Amino acid sequence: MKLVTIDEIRAAAERIKGTAVRTPLLRQPWAERGELWLKPESLQDIGAFKVRGAYNAVAALDEDQRARGVVAYSSGNHAQAVAYAAKLFGVPAVIVVPDVTPRIKVEATLAHGAEVVEVPIGERESAAYALAEERKLTLIPPFDHPAVIAGQGTIGLEIAEDLPGAEVVLIPVSGGGLASGIGTAIRALCPDAKVYGVEPELAADTAEGLRQGSRADWPIERRARTIADGLRSQPSELTFAHLRQVLDGVLTVTEDEIRSAVRTLAYRSRLIAEPSGAVATAAYLFHGDELPTGKTVSIVSGGNVDPAMLAELLTPPRP
Amino acid sequence: MKLVTIDEIRAAAERIKGTAVRTPLLRQPWAERGELWLKPESLQDIGAFKVRGAYNAVAALDEDQRARGVVAYSSGNHAQAVAYAAKLFGVPAVIVVPDVTPRIKVEATLAHGAEVVEVPIGERESAAYALAEERKLTLIPPFDHPAVIAGQGTIGLEIAEDLPGAEVVLIPVSGGGLASGIGTAIRALCPDAKVYGVEPELAADTAEGLRQGSRADWPIERRARTIADGLRSQPSELTFAHLRQVLDGVLTVTEDEIRSAVRTLAYRSRLIAEPSGAVATAAYLFHGDELPTGKTVSIVSGGNVDPAMLAELLTPPRP
Repeated sequence: MKLVTIDEIRAAAERIKGTAVRTPLLRQPWAERGELWLKPESLQDIGAFKVRGAYNAVAALDEDQRARGVVAYSSGNHAQAVAYAAKLFGVPAVIVVPDVTPRIKVEATLAHGAEVVEVPIGERESAAYALAEERKLTLIPPFDHPAVIAGQGTIGLEIAEDLPGAEVVLIPVSGGGLASGIGTAIRALCPDAKVYGVEPELAADTAEGLRQGSRADWPIERRARTIADGLRSQPSELTFAHLRQVLDGVLTVTEDEIRSAVRTLAYRSRLIAEPSGAVATAAYLFHGDELPTGKTVSIVSGGNVDPAMLAELLTPPRP
Repeated sequence: MKLVTIDEIRAAAERIKGTAVRTPLLRQPWAERGELWLKPESLQDIGAFKVRGAYNAVAALDEDQRARGVVAYSSGNHAQAVAYAAKLFGVPAVIVVPDVTPRIKVEATLAHGAEVVEVPIGERESAAYALAEERKLTLIPPFDHPAVIAGQGTIGLEIAEDLPGAEVVLIPVSGGGLASGIGTAIRALCPDAKVYGVEPELAADTAEGLRQGSRADWPIERRARTIADGLRSQPSELTFAHLRQVLDGVLTVTEDEIRSAVRTLAYRSRLIAEPSGAVATAAYLFHGDELPTGKTVSIVSGGNVDPAMLAELLTPPRP
């Protein structure tokens, strides 16, 4: 299987320049177990790293494909990322969302000028493929695509530029596009660094898959138990092949650890992270004994969390 | 009176490079009234812009002054900024704090290796001057100092680099060091931009002073009413002279507007701002009719807010 190369990631970086925010690497003076830097992808316009891959994928389309338009299925950050990227290129976009999607997310996608099609949750993928076929749209998948992986990999380029001596890099894993891309860049540019994926214990299919050497399939009801609603997907063949190549391991974190990391990021780092965006920091905080010491980078992948949940998450637990 | 020049700000930028975070300018797609960019100084290591001025002031000391050490008085962000800057230079630091300072802030200052001297609140300034005299320490004031103003002005340089077409710049005003520095840089580099200070209505001495053409003196009890605890100081002669020169006006915001802006920054921009750090955004949100339209930059000056207050601020008000 052909894996994404560092050259493809470099090309993606040229494409997304000026569109994706060049996020800073933030040193955390409060970190007690070795030095910690955060990469706050929550500061992207759409609140998550997804804009990097989506923009790179839309940018790679030819004139003809752009004229016909794109389609994506997602209820979360990828939907907004594709809608946003398409708008920037003046490309028509159709986003297929489950009919249980919170109104606020549908509105955000509509605000980017996309057409939203609501379908029963089990029919998202098939509806998107049917629309692609019928209306000659190009499907932009959330992770199973070389241009999407290369786009997410630009985060790794920026880490290598800002902290060439990085020793440990912690990355949330769900469909695996983010970890595939960053891992590829770090392997190429900081060959001595260790790269770890991080998953919720309640959706730890990748940890299991890498242990057994082939993808593990967890039913969606099982994965849906975690509060980290952005980490309920599973790797594709393509991303799994990358993860086997680039990860030194996958750590798992509990729901309480995720909630605690959301609070630490808010109180100590002044960043709003969604639960999915806080798992890597949870691994640093609570699983230090499973990690090498050294200059550590934690990816804060997104910050889209609804106001009521945020207020609840930030209320310190009673002793 | 000699005012700080753009060349002094440029020299400060060289000095603080690699120490202060080069914060990005974050475009806000949700902004409805003209384009809005945020400058998140809350992401500095110490959680506020103060590190820029403090580091520049300590860097400007000669060998002899550095060997003897520095002293500062503050219960807030300036205390931590001086302690942090001094640590980076290996310079001894004494920080004078009121004896009512929350333990968490004292601990943070001690963690930077500074000596903390607690005195009754009314004696902060005199105690600092006495220590400076007695122990031959150099006093680093929070705003009344050219090197401090030049350091804060580096924010203006970065805005001009990232958004040369900026049309409106909104800056919190208290002692006025931040607005003096940024205003000086913007006047020099974006001469067509309008520059506004923003104050809480409950501590609006600068708005009154600029209207009458000379500094207004509000008793501390009056200024202390605002939730924006970083905005309770008043300009010095030096900063007031700058503000007269560089500001197009001062807007005032209510306590409710400040609270609402803290929520908007968290929910929409994924940034934790302290109330003082949210006043400029409150002006954008609620006082658009007093501002020209156009590309607007709002300075989010800091994010140090205690967990209990944060949880309370982020709980949406009952309808």
